[in-house]
Amino acid sequence: MPPSDERFLYDEDAVESADAVTEAQRIAFGPILFQAAVCLRDFGILAHLKRRGAQGAALDEIAGDSGLSAYAAGVLLDAGLAARILFEKDGRFFLGRVGLCLLGNTMTRVNMDYVRDVCYAGMANLGQALKEGKPAGLKVFGDWPTIYPALSSLPEPARTSWFAFDHHYSDDAFELALAHVFRHRPGHIYDLGGNTGRWALRCAAHDRKARVTVLDLPEQLALLEREIGKESPDVAARIGMYPVDILRDGPLPGEADVWWMSQFLDCFSEAQIAGILARVRRAMKPGARLFILEPLCDRQRFEAGALTLAAVSLYFTCMANGNSRFLRFRMLEECLARAGFVTEEVIDGLGIGGHTLMIAVPGE
Amino acid sequence: MPPSDERFLYDEDAVESADAVTEAQRIAFGPILFQAAVCLRDFGILAHLKRRGAQGAALDEIAGDSGLSAYAAGVLLDAGLAARILFEKDGRFFLGRVGLCLLGNTMTRVNMDYVRDVCYAGMANLGQALKEGKPAGLKVFGDWPTIYPALSSLPEPARTSWFAFDHHYSDDAFELALAHVFRHRPGHIYDLGGNTGRWALRCAAHDRKARVTVLDLPEQLALLEREIGKESPDVAARIGMYPVDILRDGPLPGEADVWWMSQFLDCFSEAQIAGILARVRRAMKPGARLFILEPLCDRQRFEAGALTLAAVSLYFTCMANGNSRFLRFRMLEECLARAGFVTEEVIDGLGIGGHTLMIAVPGE
Repeated sequence: MPPSDERFLYDEDAVESADAVTEAQRIAFGPILFQAAVCLRDFGILAHLKRRGAQGAALDEIAGDSGLSAYAAGVLLDAGLAARILFEKDGRFFLGRVGLCLLGNTMTRVNMDYVRDVCYAGMANLGQALKEGKPAGLKVFGDWPTIYPALSSLPEPARTSWFAFDHHYSDDAFELALAHVFRHRPGHIYDLGGNTGRWALRCAAHDRKARVTVLDLPEQLALLEREIGKESPDVAARIGMYPVDILRDGPLPGEADVWWMSQFLDCFSEAQIAGILARVRRAMKPGARLFILEPLCDRQRFEAGALTLAAVSLYFTCMANGNSRFLRFRMLEECLARAGFVTEEVIDGLGIGGHTLMIAVPGE
Repeated sequence: MPPSDERFLYDEDAVESADAVTEAQRIAFGPILFQAAVCLRDFGILAHLKRRGAQGAALDEIAGDSGLSAYAAGVLLDAGLAARILFEKDGRFFLGRVGLCLLGNTMTRVNMDYVRDVCYAGMANLGQALKEGKPAGLKVFGDWPTIYPALSSLPEPARTSWFAFDHHYSDDAFELALAHVFRHRPGHIYDLGGNTGRWALRCAAHDRKARVTVLDLPEQLALLEREIGKESPDVAARIGMYPVDILRDGPLPGEADVWWMSQFLDCFSEAQIAGILARVRRAMKPGARLFILEPLCDRQRFEAGALTLAAVSLYFTCMANGNSRFLRFRMLEECLARAGFVTEEVIDGLGIGGHTLMIAVPGE
């Protein structure tokens, strides 16, 4: 485990008295500053100011370049100042460090698109979702019990923004986790909740002898089958499928050397997680290992990571399913212990999402 | 004029490199953090934590007190940490300075209600409003050209939140401005855009010899007439009405010693402001004075004020009329000069809205 000073924790009041009223207004006007930031980006104003660099640009020039009226550019620039995206000197506007980030940082861009297209409208129903334990915001997209069956039919641009967000956070963590899994030389891997098969395909390509079985809902496996069909016969032949609803009783297969769960447990409530782990524990053969890859709120090195996970947890509450969240380390560790696992290794900070890889083995 | 160091200006990049990514995510997730803050306040969690003081409270206790599930309280508390409203130590949660402000500061409460009930949904249309110069967000309340004729029929809670916001910012500035107006011992005051008559009634009550004539649209005057009917005959007898559409040509009366405009010019575009001032200038009798009370973006002493004005300007753009804004000092000064006025006095920092009172006289 890394020393605790490598983790960002909200363990003291980080806002000085002199700044509290300002920071409170920054929250109170957050939705307006958000929409202004999106407009500054999408009308090309941030890019224009980046091109102008230390020269900056005057209001009229910015209006001309963006095709907005001087009035529209003016109110937008003033909001950009208030959001500390820009600054102004002697009547000229300059791109600040936050603006540079909104413009060029892929994670920030992906987050903003996702909040605008997937979350913004529905999040107005957060109070109802918290009270009822149902994703009350999802009604903006139709009448669905959870977002998962709705994903393939979300209207654009919500669909594109959702998948861009989802893939952005898992892809590079996968790459880093791969080495940790294969140093145990697994012959057979079970991928629980394997989804579109990204992990399974990567394993099969990484080790030409490895077999991977994806355990998931029958509907998901139907989608996966199409993906596998696009692969080379060599890879495809080593990927199996096992239909299962992990929340219902019934037998699980027990051949795997490695059981893999990536951002799988965060789709379930704490009681469900405990049940899933117990069921997996019973099915595991001696010597098998459990790998859990999750971004954990309380194991983030950077505040940006902790903030992102806390905010996206409310997406689970209000838009996705009403009862899941990004997990906390302690809760996950307790669930593992209760299910009879011993935590063997914890590796923090994988990839830009700051994922944690937990490796556990069945206890005595 | 106060020294410039008493004014808050966004004239340098206020965010350090190390904080830029975090601050960018704070903007990107601003709408989610906003909704979380509203829920923390309205589920009584902030009040509960204030009562617990330095003792703090554990998750289970907070869940029990708020009537939320442990899951719901948990995700909400984590978002409260991310928004720096709360902090957490040894498994207990504490109210931070920002949280205290969200809970107890009236301005912050009024701003949050207004953003939630009036602005949130419509602000998703900001881009369209900026492009078209029309309040594209207003459609969430029906088919209106501007918000002004819609005010009396806004659905609750939008209506209550709008008026609470409007009155909160003008009331105490009125009180402070009154002294500045009456040291000139005006016998007759014109109140342009007198709205619900709050200023006119206050003047008539303040000086038992003063006469006030409200100049406004006929529809507004009909509402005003009802308000005046509730006053004592002595006060009512000294309040007159003059129906006028200030944007159309036609004669203005010229009897007043003082022409008063409070948050009136910010409802118009720059070209319209120039036209209104020229028209007033032509009607004024010798020795008369013009008083303009406006919160000005670039004359704020505190960042919270500058931030609020910039954000609320986008409400004008997207929800109110599509073409007005809180004004900048330089623009207003230029419009006054072009209309033939000489600025006699500028008094900054009146009331919690940080209003500026400009006193001008006709030039040669």
